[in-house]
Amino acid sequence: MNRNVVFTFFLFCFVTICRGSGTDIALDAKATLLHRIDSLNLLIYTCLLTLTVLTIWVFKHRRVSWLHETGLAVIYGLIVGAIIRYAGSTNHITHINVNPEPGTTYNLSVPPDMLRFHFPASLPITPGDSPIANKTYAYSFRGEIVNVEQNEIDLKATFDPEIFFNIILPPIIFHAGYCLKRKYFFRNLGAILTFAMVGTALSALVIGALMYGCVQLMPASLASSFTFLDTLYFGALISPTDPLTVLAIFSQLKVDVNLYAMIFGESVLNDAVALVLSGAIQNYETRYSHDGGFEISGFLGAIGDFIGIFSLSLLVGALMGCLTALMTKFTHVRDWPLLESALFVLMSYAAFLIAEVCELTGVVAVLFCGICQAHYTYNNLSSDSRNRTKQLFELLNFLAENFIFTYIGVSMFTFPKHHFDPWFIIAGFITSMLGRAVNIYPLSFLLNLGRKPPIPVNFQHMLFFSGLRGAMSFALAIRNTVSEARQAMLTTTSMIVIATVVLQGGAATHALDYLRIPTGQGSNEESEALPYRDDTPRGGGDAGGGQKARLARVWGALDSRLLKPLLTHARPPLTETLPAFMRPVARLLTTTHQYTQGDNTLRRTDSDSDLCIDDPQIPSSIDPQQLWPGLVDTRISVEGITGSNI
Amino acid sequence: MNRNVVFTFFLFCFVTICRGSGTDIALDAKATLLHRIDSLNLLIYTCLLTLTVLTIWVFKHRRVSWLHETGLAVIYGLIVGAIIRYAGSTNHITHINVNPEPGTTYNLSVPPDMLRFHFPASLPITPGDSPIANKTYAYSFRGEIVNVEQNEIDLKATFDPEIFFNIILPPIIFHAGYCLKRKYFFRNLGAILTFAMVGTALSALVIGALMYGCVQLMPASLASSFTFLDTLYFGALISPTDPLTVLAIFSQLKVDVNLYAMIFGESVLNDAVALVLSGAIQNYETRYSHDGGFEISGFLGAIGDFIGIFSLSLLVGALMGCLTALMTKFTHVRDWPLLESALFVLMSYAAFLIAEVCELTGVVAVLFCGICQAHYTYNNLSSDSRNRTKQLFELLNFLAENFIFTYIGVSMFTFPKHHFDPWFIIAGFITSMLGRAVNIYPLSFLLNLGRKPPIPVNFQHMLFFSGLRGAMSFALAIRNTVSEARQAMLTTTSMIVIATVVLQGGAATHALDYLRIPTGQGSNEESEALPYRDDTPRGGGDAGGGQKARLARVWGALDSRLLKPLLTHARPPLTETLPAFMRPVARLLTTTHQYTQGDNTLRRTDSDSDLCIDDPQIPSSIDPQQLWPGLVDTRISVEGITGSNI
Repeated sequence: MNRNVVFTFFLFCFVTICRGSGTDIALDAKATLLHRIDSLNLLIYTCLLTLTVLTIWVFKHRRVSWLHETGLAVIYGLIVGAIIRYAGSTNHITHINVNPEPGTTYNLSVPPDMLRFHFPASLPITPGDSPIANKTYAYSFRGEIVNVEQNEIDLKATFDPEIFFNIILPPIIFHAGYCLKRKYFFRNLGAILTFAMVGTALSALVIGALMYGCVQLMPASLASSFTFLDTLYFGALISPTDPLTVLAIFSQLKVDVNLYAMIFGESVLNDAVALVLSGAIQNYETRYSHDGGFEISGFLGAIGDFIGIFSLSLLVGALMGCLTALMTKFTHVRDWPLLESALFVLMSYAAFLIAEVCELTGVVAVLFCGICQAHYTYNNLSSDSRNRTKQLFELLNFLAENFIFTYIGVSMFTFPKHHFDPWFIIAGFITSMLGRAVNIYPLSFLLNLGRKPPIPVNFQHMLFFSGLRGAMSFALAIRNTVSEARQAMLTTTSMIVIATVVLQGGAATHALDYLRIPTGQGSNEESEALPYRDDTPRGGGDAGGGQKARLARVWGALDSRLLKPLLTHARPPLTETLPAFMRPVARLLTTTHQYTQGDNTLRRTDSDSDLCIDDPQIPSSIDPQQLWPGLVDTRISVEGITGSNI
Repeated sequence: MNRNVVFTFFLFCFVTICRGSGTDIALDAKATLLHRIDSLNLLIYTCLLTLTVLTIWVFKHRRVSWLHETGLAVIYGLIVGAIIRYAGSTNHITHINVNPEPGTTYNLSVPPDMLRFHFPASLPITPGDSPIANKTYAYSFRGEIVNVEQNEIDLKATFDPEIFFNIILPPIIFHAGYCLKRKYFFRNLGAILTFAMVGTALSALVIGALMYGCVQLMPASLASSFTFLDTLYFGALISPTDPLTVLAIFSQLKVDVNLYAMIFGESVLNDAVALVLSGAIQNYETRYSHDGGFEISGFLGAIGDFIGIFSLSLLVGALMGCLTALMTKFTHVRDWPLLESALFVLMSYAAFLIAEVCELTGVVAVLFCGICQAHYTYNNLSSDSRNRTKQLFELLNFLAENFIFTYIGVSMFTFPKHHFDPWFIIAGFITSMLGRAVNIYPLSFLLNLGRKPPIPVNFQHMLFFSGLRGAMSFALAIRNTVSEARQAMLTTTSMIVIATVVLQGGAATHALDYLRIPTGQGSNEESEALPYRDDTPRGGGDAGGGQKARLARVWGALDSRLLKPLLTHARPPLTETLPAFMRPVARLLTTTHQYTQGDNTLRRTDSDSDLCIDDPQIPSSIDPQQLWPGLVDTRISVEGITGSNI
């Protein structure tokens, strides 16, 4: 192995260098060595991704459909992970066992964050050939040692799980929000919300309960390490779906747009739901469950957490999106597209970070930020920035997605904190399938009671079949591996992700055939690749139209008459839609561009006018009271410009 | 302070959670806390960058030229750094002092990589309210403790210096290579190479020697900690220039293109030279200098290192660039621009990583990779990918550059390993200015002996004035802060960077006026922003043309008749330019596109045809012997297709 040669060489250099005098020089050399190992790890992943890109090209060129790029990334990752694991590395790290200094007192419940090691410890300094300075070194907490034989490459071919939540997931989720096909998403909103909200919770509960039952039947060593909360946590993390493979095939085969919207919308939202849900379960564990038993107040508290965190995160994301829209509307930053794009990227990432800092869920914030950016900010951007941001996030999404799937493959072999338990793995596979079934079939039945046209049975089967597990499940599982139970969950999750992505993903085309789902409908691929010029004719099984609820209509009116004119350059200007007494404010918030342009010019280029203007149900003028019911009483006391209301 | 409120809240949560039972839960909570702190740090930098972007917009809008975006980023960084430092944080980390277990033997010359801490150590497990598992935890080496009072936020508002070399510098340097204005760069190649290679080495030597003299005059405590190699290292790291501010003003004011090319080209190359030079000095320190004295063999070894590492890094970068060109030429990956862009990005980053792994210098590799990508690969890309890669690297460069300057500001206050020594700082300022003067004036004098037209005196003053220090100096200084001498260097470097960027950068416009350098020449800004459509007429003080050396002419012929046809779709096809006996190979390497297209279509769209086709000196046909002198003898024995040579 070339890698081994490199490592032996490093080791040689390292040993050679260590002979040099002086601790400082040796520390220099050590820093250099660590840098090289970091680079090598990055290089391994870069080469894997390059290989994946080239193979995808070959597959696309030859029209191979039985393996998607993510499946490919996983398989390459597995191969390289196995090589790294079994090729064996010669680079051992030095370690010693330590005890606290006599007389030290410390908190017994948690290990300290940092150890201070006086070096050379308590020994007289040897004169002559070891002129070591009498120094104190800091050592930071790394984690529990599970496998004493692990060496540096094993530790290093893995990354800190934090990078998934800070670096890898945000662009993936943002991209999903930014290119959500909003027309069909809103048409199928009821079904999507039902599957994503109720379905995910139901699935988590069912999987958690079933797994708890299974665990009780297992050998005592494992059973004792799992609490019901642990299995419920497993249920929450294994419930979100990530049907990348399936959707790619849908795009290619131009499958029914409503089915596409349901699967895509559900997978986007259930990632968010599962993340918040797992957080709430963990909060319940730490805050409410003093004796590990069930407490009704604690349960209600956890539900409160769930709702509060979800809606506050949504709010943070939406507000940051709207703030970006306002910034791009009222400044002329669009004259410098580079600055504009930078602003866009920074504000979107800030939404994520603000939510994380405020103990909310960044991924949910960034999702709704993405939706708002697409809905409002996108209309204000210069065409250069539109292209730039679209292409940037497309590329980032592609790289991040393939990286995470490669990593799932590699970490299967190299991550030191795996715990293989065949019973738990088998139980995990079966219950996760049952959980998906409980999500889809009963809820489809209930939805069909009030839905015209209903969701056909073959669509239901396809929804069930699209329940691949992906990046979110893995990231949640690897986030915390402190206990043996958590490690068993990680192993099981990794295996479920790999199996579903490779096998289910590969069989998706056949499933479409087998279920006789119509393909080749409209130019679905085109409109999906360019989500902002969505001018496809309405698809076949139209579920929207006449079914639009009153709430959706009010929202549509509010959006087109208040939010759009406020946040973008869209017509009609606020001066026309706001009640008379707010004219001064309205004038301040309306740009000259909004006054002067024709009514039609913007509508044609508007990114998502498809949300409402096609819809005959929306009244062309709306009663202000419907929008500001709370303002009615105060209107008298405010001095209006025209005064006509007084 | 809002930050303090957040921290107090965290602390409260942390304390609350710690009351919960079980070590695992406490560890969960600790992981969550650390995640929040990471997010907070990223948020601080994101907000600073957003603020910078908005202020830049205001400045551009109002045509403020006395402060450039990088100066602004530094100033915002300083303000926030001071706030973080003096607002004081309440979040203390727990630590205990440890000793090795009795009877442990370990290598005395370096501290171990890892400590293993048995918890609760050597104490009987207390039954009842502290049910702690009897576990062993790993603690990894972090560094020497210099300031015992440092707390978590101080450690955390700083990043691992590795991120500069793995994440921040590569896009900056690649972008510089990718948009180098090659026509003027090659015209002034002699001057640029002289300033960058000879000048930087000279400057490093002069600064090193002067600093060593200064240090000897200082109080003994500091003098004893510096060796001559230390001051030479300081000379090497403070020599590279980064005249971002000046160049931005040049673009704006359309200053003479040759002056622009000299300053930009020099700054791009001297970053690379300084990096390799500092590495060679460090190698000399560790490998050759056994007693700290001067050894002629060691000195020659270090020079060999320098040349070897520089040329091998150049080779790695150029090869990866050419490999990407071949991949994009012979596959149809251009049909999927997303894959193509991903391939481009991955291959370029791989060039960096391969060089780092092979103990070469990644930044040099990525620079020459960028130049090759622009020169060859760019011509093969689909127009979508051209835009995408250009815009992507432009954006990355912008964000990375502003991040590093913000970080320089913040770290001035928060980085725990600063060592303020007023004498060393004053000496650093004076010697770095002298070093720049030694670089420019004597070398300009020598260059002018053989150069027509010569470099005018006001251009020389401007070259001297453009010697701002920037990202590379800072990254080199912060890379290693193990000793007091290195810490003093970091502090001095930070201060020099801040002072030159803010003051010299701010005064650049006035300097242009004062030196009566002509501005408003041609459409310099346009051609710099779009370096690939460089069709400006030749600028005023043309230094190329008749002065082109024989080497440059051979290279031009080799490039246009062998490399371009091999690596791109450019005419003439290899079948016409290669000697007859190589026709089979040539046919294999020529695409049908190359045969069928007209001679003019491609030349017009070729990215950097300006390198040679404008040049009347290049012979329209070239003797194959000039290109393959080594092949002449073997030609007889190879059976040619036409056989005419035999």
